[in-house]
Amino acid sequence: MIGIDWGTSRFRAFRLAPDGAIRDHRSGARGVLAVPNGRFADSLREEIGPWLAAGERHVLMCGMVGSRQGWVEAPYLPCPVGPAELAAALIDVPFDWAEVKLVPGVNGADPDGVAEVMRGEETQLAGALAAFDRLGAGRVAAACLPGTHSKWARVAGGRITGFATHMTGEVFAALRGHTILGRTMQDGAATDLPAFDRGVARAAQAGGLLHHLFGVRAEALAGRLDPGAGASYLSGLLIGHEVKAALTGVAADAVVPVIGAPELTALYARAIEAGGGIAERINGEAAARGLGLIGALVGWR
Amino acid sequence: MIGIDWGTSRFRAFRLAPDGAIRDHRSGARGVLAVPNGRFADSLREEIGPWLAAGERHVLMCGMVGSRQGWVEAPYLPCPVGPAELAAALIDVPFDWAEVKLVPGVNGADPDGVAEVMRGEETQLAGALAAFDRLGAGRVAAACLPGTHSKWARVAGGRITGFATHMTGEVFAALRGHTILGRTMQDGAATDLPAFDRGVARAAQAGGLLHHLFGVRAEALAGRLDPGAGASYLSGLLIGHEVKAALTGVAADAVVPVIGAPELTALYARAIEAGGGIAERINGEAAARGLGLIGALVGWR
Repeated sequence: MIGIDWGTSRFRAFRLAPDGAIRDHRSGARGVLAVPNGRFADSLREEIGPWLAAGERHVLMCGMVGSRQGWVEAPYLPCPVGPAELAAALIDVPFDWAEVKLVPGVNGADPDGVAEVMRGEETQLAGALAAFDRLGAGRVAAACLPGTHSKWARVAGGRITGFATHMTGEVFAALRGHTILGRTMQDGAATDLPAFDRGVARAAQAGGLLHHLFGVRAEALAGRLDPGAGASYLSGLLIGHEVKAALTGVAADAVVPVIGAPELTALYARAIEAGGGIAERINGEAAARGLGLIGALVGWR
Repeated sequence: MIGIDWGTSRFRAFRLAPDGAIRDHRSGARGVLAVPNGRFADSLREEIGPWLAAGERHVLMCGMVGSRQGWVEAPYLPCPVGPAELAAALIDVPFDWAEVKLVPGVNGADPDGVAEVMRGEETQLAGALAAFDRLGAGRVAAACLPGTHSKWARVAGGRITGFATHMTGEVFAALRGHTILGRTMQDGAATDLPAFDRGVARAAQAGGLLHHLFGVRAEALAGRLDPGAGASYLSGLLIGHEVKAALTGVAADAVVPVIGAPELTALYARAIEAGGGIAERINGEAAARGLGLIGALVGWR
């Protein structure tokens, strides 16, 4: 079978073996927003034509391709949701060269009733949580997908019971680019780990984020923060606040899967562990694993 | 005597009667940054020449005019600081047409040792706290000067014992102008009070600021927040988080003076009262009152 994670700005496809292993993969910038005039079928055929020619007949997609801006709008499934619920609610997509189905998105509410939605992360979570079966389902109570808009899912028995989005990455960019804080920072990535750790430690103290942010400038003016370390300190401060809030109420001995690109999962794992938590990084293809898992449930491999 | 609050972007002068009443006042855009080539003496003479001609001989200044970018750099006094400490540490400024002195700034550290400084706010606080003598010094434990960079002072016995800056105003502008949140907001001031109150109430809930910020968009997309109300909701969310953090550890029956422009003190007072606190707005000329109080201590009125 073929698994596809088709997001807003990226297209990623996996050719999966019957045992779920990735036989081949391709990715590119043909995200949903780069498909002209709704030509999703043509785009898909161009992307995976060779695999179809080689005999693949089943294509399972997840991500923003199922949104209103995508190919076919898939309704959201309400929490709690696990692989079985996702597999039972796949949406058929018309395509002349193979059977194509779409994993629905998930909606939920945070503990105070504010609405939340996800598309694509539910499939990554399904794949990541399957990797933790060996730990026993009870060991995973929360999982993190860091990014511009990080998602934190609450998990019970291998199913997503609720989730919350934190706009940490976007707030970082706005503060660095458009406030006085950027004036004491050099360009470049947030890669000074001691400075990052100082920011995380600061987030654990009293005073609140809005005060801690001003301290980035105060520390720089006092000569205690190099221009090259300012962005790392700010990153640690924001991620530290995010992790502290997201793990409130989660048992200290729970394992927290952190799913994403290695640079980002490394930082989140540091912040989780600094707070006494147990992080488990999943840098590989969680989406491919989730698509394969759901595909197996409908008999496609 | 003449009292002057000379800030970065504003010049404000008060001619004070012997009883401290404001006989006359003037203000304009000749802030410290608008004085060319260090011509502070000439600028001051142009601003207050008529009052000098009328016989005034004593001029007391506060604000950024005492910074490195100002006229004469005044050292910072360490906390705790009250009117007596300020009056005992005035800095002489050379000026041919009157005796001119400068109120020093104040430095301190927040409870975790992060450095903080103020210039000008110490004088406003001195004036504002004097107005609360009738309550008994013990009733005021914290005071707020809201703004782009809000200052929260801890107070004991009428003196500033420490303070913390929250960059709430600047964060509001950066988030509104440079993140996805601005897309669901109309232009204009944050004047929808019910939406502001909802933001304040949200800040009291779990989840953390970085998650609550994403909720601004979620609420707008769910049709529960009008485009015209988005900025007010965001303002309430940020000010609510600021107030909650700043008043942690402050007794619930303490009176919290909020010192500044009426539009802003009204919002902060709402947020303080929503959390069960007692706010007292001081919209008048706290700086003039503080300058007059310190002037009286050195025999100038």
